[in-house]
Amino acid sequence: MIVVLRLGHRIDRDKRITTHVALVARAFGADKIFISTNDRKIEKNIQSICKRFGGDFQIETGLDYKKIIKQWNGTIVHLTMYGDELDKSINKIDKNRDLLVIVGAEKVPSQIYDVADFNISVGNQPHSEVAALAIFLDRYTGGKWQEKQFNGKIEILPSNKGKKVVSKDN
Amino acid sequence: MIVVLRLGHRIDRDKRITTHVALVARAFGADKIFISTNDRKIEKNIQSICKRFGGDFQIETGLDYKKIIKQWNGTIVHLTMYGDELDKSINKIDKNRDLLVIVGAEKVPSQIYDVADFNISVGNQPHSEVAALAIFLDRYTGGKWQEKQFNGKIEILPSNKGKKVVSKDN
Repeated sequence: MIVVLRLGHRIDRDKRITTHVALVARAFGADKIFISTNDRKIEKNIQSICKRFGGDFQIETGLDYKKIIKQWNGTIVHLTMYGDELDKSINKIDKNRDLLVIVGAEKVPSQIYDVADFNISVGNQPHSEVAALAIFLDRYTGGKWQEKQFNGKIEILPSNKGKKVVSKDN
Repeated sequence: MIVVLRLGHRIDRDKRITTHVALVARAFGADKIFISTNDRKIEKNIQSICKRFGGDFQIETGLDYKKIIKQWNGTIVHLTMYGDELDKSINKIDKNRDLLVIVGAEKVPSQIYDVADFNISVGNQPHSEVAALAIFLDRYTGGKWQEKQFNGKIEILPSNKGKKVVSKDN
């Protein structure tokens, strides 16, 4: 199981970034996202996408992150621009264990660096937790996210021109 | 040369997403970003990061995107969830030509699908233009973005615990 834990989400400032983090988690093979801040709107938004596009991705918000971390029975990865090199770290992670991937908003409590089994950077340049999560999950799953079947009511078929959408409600 | 063209940026709604798009462009090997909407604040923000973290990435906002596309002498890729499969498309792109990568906000004019040499999807699930751009540039550069030297005033050194920051101003 792969679970993403989003820390420090500020409802007004981060709503779109956190929505992108959640959608990336879903599309790139995670099973669930926990968001520490309570935000019903983002929950509904993501659940609505799951309902239409399929899969069994779950979202929970308003959680005590310290408790989640304490009770986590598996590996903890923290994605940070200060972390160790992705390619070096990725092979050290035991893929038979459950994985908690922590992505923060701007500032992350220093304890997170301590509790993480791996602090991993997707490059050491400032960019985006959305991109970092996508690249990390791509590497971690060995690109397997591309094969995942979501069996949604809406399915988009790859096409070089135009939009090919299959709607199973019709 | 790799240039990213960001379309449909709405200053209030998209400022953080577009900032992430620009930072991803810079970190993953693009040379420049054009943003169709005029937004001096985002220009200053990105320029300030370039000044501190190095590299010669450029940003211009408030541009006529139709003109940019018309005058583009190279390949045009449009990233869209409706596009053709990434792995199938990526090898068809001539890497000796300049590349314009178009990423839209929510709705993209249908002409963009027509003018693009390649409409490419990074998976056909809804997620994020930030993630799509990162994965696309990762594949396109064959992961070479990881080796790029930025020679900035601030350099972050990979580390599994804590933060190792070298500041060349000191």
